[in-house]
Amino acid sequence: MELTHFDSQGRARMVDVSAKEVTRREAVARGEVRMHPRTLALIKEGKMAKGDVLAVAQVAGIMGAKATASLIPMCHPLFISGARLDFQLDENNSRVLIEARVKTAGQTGVEMEALTAVSIAALTIYDMCKAVDKDMVIGEIRLVEKTGGKSGHYLREGEEQWGK
Amino acid sequence: MELTHFDSQGRARMVDVSAKEVTRREAVARGEVRMHPRTLALIKEGKMAKGDVLAVAQVAGIMGAKATASLIPMCHPLFISGARLDFQLDENNSRVLIEARVKTAGQTGVEMEALTAVSIAALTIYDMCKAVDKDMVIGEIRLVEKTGGKSGHYLREGEEQWGK
Amino acid sequence: MELTHFDSQGRARMVDVSAKEVTRREAVARGEVRMHPRTLALIKEGKMAKGDVLAVAQVAGIMGAKATASLIPMCHPLFISGARLDFQLDENNSRVLIEARVKTAGQTGVEMEALTAVSIAALTIYDMCKAVDKDMVIGEIRLVEKTGGKSGHYLREGEEQWGK
Amino acid sequence: MELTHFDSQGRARMVDVSAKEVTRREAVARGEVRMHPRTLALIKEGKMAKGDVLAVAQVAGIMGAKATASLIPMCHPLFISGARLDFQLDENNSRVLIEARVKTAGQTGVEMEALTAVSIAALTIYDMCKAVDKDMVIGEIRLVEKTGGKSGHYLREGEEQWGK
Amino acid sequence: MELTHFDSQGRARMVDVSAKEVTRREAVARGEVRMHPRTLALIKEGKMAKGDVLAVAQVAGIMGAKATASLIPMCHPLFISGARLDFQLDENNSRVLIEARVKTAGQTGVEMEALTAVSIAALTIYDMCKAVDKDMVIGEIRLVEKTGGKSGHYLREGEEQWGK
Amino acid sequence: MELTHFDSQGRARMVDVSAKEVTRREAVARGEVRMHPRTLALIKEGKMAKGDVLAVAQVAGIMGAKATASLIPMCHPLFISGARLDFQLDENNSRVLIEARVKTAGQTGVEMEALTAVSIAALTIYDMCKAVDKDMVIGEIRLVEKTGGKSGHYLREGEEQWGK
Repeated sequence: MELTHFDSQGRARMVDVSAKEVTRREAVARGEVRMHPRTLALIKEGKMAKGDVLAVAQVAGIMGAKATASLIPMCHPLFISGARLDFQLDENNSRVLIEARVKTAGQTGVEMEALTAVSIAALTIYDMCKAVDKDMVIGEIRLVEKTGGKSGHYLREGEEQWGK
Repeated sequence: MELTHFDSQGRARMVDVSAKEVTRREAVARGEVRMHPRTLALIKEGKMAKGDVLAVAQVAGIMGAKATASLIPMCHPLFISGARLDFQLDENNSRVLIEARVKTAGQTGVEMEALTAVSIAALTIYDMCKAVDKDMVIGEIRLVEKTGGKSGHYLREGEEQWGK
Repeated sequence: MELTHFDSQGRARMVDVSAKEVTRREAVARGEVRMHPRTLALIKEGKMAKGDVLAVAQVAGIMGAKATASLIPMCHPLFISGARLDFQLDENNSRVLIEARVKTAGQTGVEMEALTAVSIAALTIYDMCKAVDKDMVIGEIRLVEKTGGKSGHYLREGEEQWGK
Repeated sequence: MELTHFDSQGRARMVDVSAKEVTRREAVARGEVRMHPRTLALIKEGKMAKGDVLAVAQVAGIMGAKATASLIPMCHPLFISGARLDFQLDENNSRVLIEARVKTAGQTGVEMEALTAVSIAALTIYDMCKAVDKDMVIGEIRLVEKTGGKSGHYLREGEEQWGK
Repeated sequence: MELTHFDSQGRARMVDVSAKEVTRREAVARGEVRMHPRTLALIKEGKMAKGDVLAVAQVAGIMGAKATASLIPMCHPLFISGARLDFQLDENNSRVLIEARVKTAGQTGVEMEALTAVSIAALTIYDMCKAVDKDMVIGEIRLVEKTGGKSGHYLREGEEQWGK
Repeated sequence: MELTHFDSQGRARMVDVSAKEVTRREAVARGEVRMHPRTLALIKEGKMAKGDVLAVAQVAGIMGAKATASLIPMCHPLFISGARLDFQLDENNSRVLIEARVKTAGQTGVEMEALTAVSIAALTIYDMCKAVDKDMVIGEIRLVEKTGGKSGHYLREGEEQWGK
């Protein structure tokens, strides 16, 4: 087994995907921002009455997905053909759950785009709430599902479909 | 208590910091990438013999710190006067620990820059190892310390200084 | 009278502002998107019930303000210390009115940042509504007020203060 | 009729175009910068003798077209296969007319790229002339023609072909 | 013979490549950084013992390749399907040799991407060594080989294949 | 003597300049593009009659100067307070000479900005002429003069002042 991002001299490179097939691909990633209950309450109120942290985080996440190849050095540029972010307020565990779903038709997968979208959305939530809560923790950023491409279907164990 | 990123109409804005003092500020953030032990072993070998995932992640993290204001919508642009990333391989828990330390002299803090540096470094580790391990999880991204500025010294409880 | 962006050979340059004083500066710009009444109605409904074109346009406008120096060739980079966008739905004239207000402490003004914020917000409104209305027109993008700097206070005639 | 940029929950998303056909597409957009006659005269002279505002605006417009997807949140990234900007000095009405023509072969149209090119070119003209004229107004930015794609041919009424 | 980047009016444009065939294309570019022998010695030591200038330059070069279309005004955006940088320390002539190899499947070649990768890698070497050597010279940046596309195979005379 | 971009563990970092003095700084860099005489003739004609390669290269160089910190990993972001590019057509040696002059008031010098401006301008010349000449060589990119900052005045030997 080898880390394909390195050549035989041990230097990093952007792996050649010229010979890969162009197929429709989709990736789903998730993550969360854990916070004080009163911070979550402020987000919840804001969403309904006077401001919407999640609306800003959503725009940031989608723009982050498009910026992926300029941020991650060995990541191939590609055309995102669709992207969406969803949020859930989990009051029992005092956290915001984030899900990103990204599609493309290309030679490489969109895992990195989905994971980057979640990360940037989470950082945006942190930024917009940090005046009231510096203790927030961003975590559990992971690939949940991946379809298309030679490596086939990947489905992380123990993940439930989000009702929509 | 209010989320300062929203004005009285509830719309997002970039908060006016014109009247804030220019002071030296520093922020330290940490995070981790949890992975299969064999993935960690590949990183460790690569580092010494044939490739260095962490060297690439480090460059990506520092460049990510500089890109922060273009990624996080309400975040103020500022001049980073210094940035460094450090990594620890925690074999007991099969994870890579990441620490970013960012400095500036300005009117706003550099928490977001430090957190973004950690996030982009973590995503880069994921990208470079995903061919052998799709189950990695990025987590525990948090502010550890913050100095300078009116809000004073912030030190997260339970964090140990990294020996260097 | 000379166009200061050209040197004595007629070539474009970024004007040297090294000797200019650092002062607090603010600029206000406005513009509009004219559209079919039913498009305006969709924006208005969306805003309240099921989607918010203006929330996305606002984020885009603020991020556009930060991107100004990378878009306008001879424009100086600077630190924006505050930015906000406001919108008004003018149903009588079937248009969305946009106002951007940008602040800095620096050696050059922020007119271009305010004008760019309005332009990007307007383009975003166009993008999000173009599936139902390709006839929209973006117009009347203008500087309304400018304070700070050697050239003094500029106030465009005939502009009314927006109630807030 | 619905604003397709919103999902059923009212949140913005980047619309999925995976199933759309790849076709050759072209879009033409126009706009103008209105100014004092003496400003227009300076541009005209400069163009011939000692500097060329429009040459800089043209480069800015083409680079702006390429930056579109990073500026407009829900806009799909795509490959521009050709782009050109043309200008006309309309001395009767004391304004510079701008036309952008952008081509691609892809799954989405290039209206936004053409409109963005016109907007950035107009802002560049403003920037380069603002030392002598702060009263300039950018306006009438509109889609003039669009070919390719399922929605068919769009031709705005009342637009004349520019002689070339 | 004509410079194809200009239209019949002499204005720059991005040449229309819509009708060009999509083929696999590859370009190889080379360049060098000449320096004091002691600077080269520091790079060599660092590489083995305590730091790796070339590892940073390599990441910068690959990211530079991806940024090409945003830097070179009339350059078409395209999808890089693979990129690698190699370095040689030429102690006889006290210089670092740089080679970039870039691949795509598209309608335009990747010469500019390969040349930009070499340029950014060279600038990064300069940046990281300038504290000890301001006299370094970046030079001999040239296209070495180009395959694919209508213009056929280009091979620069007098270039030897790098052993790998 | 040490490469200051590495810390004591040998990892790259962005050097901390917080304690450096803010002074006015200027850097001058030069470079050249060597080409076939007929290519130089086309540039010369174009400049006067029907197109201006150098006008495009100049805009690209100035925008490149502003992009420096996003391209060179360990380079500090800073505010450019002025930038200009000049060109000379050296028909005796069949080459275009490029000079960039960049100013700032800050804690770090602008050598990298000046060198990057020259590099991007040279690449742009290559791009715009490559259809008629693939043999061009970019070379002799070097720092010519540097003023301001603790390290004092640097003046490269053997460089003549360009008459202007």
